[in-house]
Amino acid sequence: MTQISGSTRIFGIIADPVAQVKTPQGINRIARERGVDSVMVPLHVASEGLAAAFAGLRTIKNFGGMIVTVPHKEAAVNLCDDVSARGRLVGAINAVRREPDGRLLGDIFDGIGFVTGLERNGVSLRGSRVYLAGAGGAAKAIAFALAEANVAAITIFNRSAEKAEALARRLREQRPDLITRVGSPDPAGHDLIVNGTSLGLKADDPLPFDTTRLTAEMTVAEIIMEPEVTPLLAAARQRGSRIHFGKPMLESQLDLMASFMGVTAPAAA
Amino acid sequence: MTQISGSTRIFGIIADPVAQVKTPQGINRIARERGVDSVMVPLHVASEGLAAAFAGLRTIKNFGGMIVTVPHKEAAVNLCDDVSARGRLVGAINAVRREPDGRLLGDIFDGIGFVTGLERNGVSLRGSRVYLAGAGGAAKAIAFALAEANVAAITIFNRSAEKAEALARRLREQRPDLITRVGSPDPAGHDLIVNGTSLGLKADDPLPFDTTRLTAEMTVAEIIMEPEVTPLLAAARQRGSRIHFGKPMLESQLDLMASFMGVTAPAAA
Repeated sequence: MTQISGSTRIFGIIADPVAQVKTPQGINRIARERGVDSVMVPLHVASEGLAAAFAGLRTIKNFGGMIVTVPHKEAAVNLCDDVSARGRLVGAINAVRREPDGRLLGDIFDGIGFVTGLERNGVSLRGSRVYLAGAGGAAKAIAFALAEANVAAITIFNRSAEKAEALARRLREQRPDLITRVGSPDPAGHDLIVNGTSLGLKADDPLPFDTTRLTAEMTVAEIIMEPEVTPLLAAARQRGSRIHFGKPMLESQLDLMASFMGVTAPAAA
Repeated sequence: MTQISGSTRIFGIIADPVAQVKTPQGINRIARERGVDSVMVPLHVASEGLAAAFAGLRTIKNFGGMIVTVPHKEAAVNLCDDVSARGRLVGAINAVRREPDGRLLGDIFDGIGFVTGLERNGVSLRGSRVYLAGAGGAAKAIAFALAEANVAAITIFNRSAEKAEALARRLREQRPDLITRVGSPDPAGHDLIVNGTSLGLKADDPLPFDTTRLTAEMTVAEIIMEPEVTPLLAAARQRGSRIHFGKPMLESQLDLMASFMGVTAPAAA
């Protein structure tokens, strides 16, 4: 890190708790690589303090923006002056840019980070048939980004079929030509299989769907980063499927979020 | 600097403008020397944003406090939950500590920093007769700290005799046994001569008082740091007086403010 001086721009990551986040290291490495005099610091704010924190950070002229994470991603939407179309679709944001006049702009990079990670690994999305487990925040962001990347069909499997149907409806509103279905635990008949649930984070979690139906023609993608090889990915490997780890999603996101917030060299800005 | 992580504590310096401040480097060096996982960042906030900034910073649980400087030292008094006796006397603060419950405590270290700097340089204050030029913010803080350090007498020379008299009155309220006078440009009859004005900062400033009356028995102390040798100190040197630079005041203050805000290793806290 370059030495912090009076002219260093400040970025934050706002979360509760915050001690476990690894984002400051990632964004500060990107700033260093890009030759930017900026620093990202952790901001530990509870839900009841979020509105005041946003109002205060808005007044800090050398504050460039912040990454927003658990549990603030939904609440932050209403604290911004403007939110991207995809942020409004998902109902959540994970990055805020502070404009020079103090306006706060929100956007979400979960989905686009996931899609960029896949594409960088050579997984082609256009025209493919996707099976998505989950209909929560992360799954929603991924679903909208996949729709934007012109997949042909998305089948959503979720414990609550109602939430799956609601997401399918929103996706059709966004892209009327998209084939959407509410699915079963059986992923057969799809090219890309995505775990958009948190199942696999804990050692004794059940598998998110029926892995005995996976085939060698399928790509199985995970959003969980730790453990790197989840029980799902281990099972997929055994069935001969191509596997895609959770980490590239974060790496792609860091780059995208850094650029969005303005962690960019003055000449390139 | 140690790498910033999710568990790093945050400190700030709030000012307008802020790009010129050197305090982050100083405090971050102290943190490194003390083995503390903390970082001080500049916070550029205009007067109209100060109240919202304080309200927001209060909500950040890993925010330890901030240094307050121009033009916020007076306004910050009313934004704290509690202010030290000397802060109330001076009507200004230059450091804020955030308590774990979010309460903000203000204190001022200008005066005590000055006094500590003198004492570290072997200038004995108890019982001495002081001539002080100026009755503004810095001069006030120094006057109260000198009174607390048990000097015998303080003569205040100020362009506005009214302000000098008001300060003398406040000093007597604090220490009824203190001999106070409103002075003339002539510093004769004193042991310690202090420039508490900003005269000397600019190259074409007049001298703050009549330097032809300085003697070899006197110590002449400056609060201006840049230039190191002000015209006043050059004249004092020529007259054979002992001279005291402006920089030790800042160095002593940094240490004191770091400890006050809690830039201290957990074991020592």
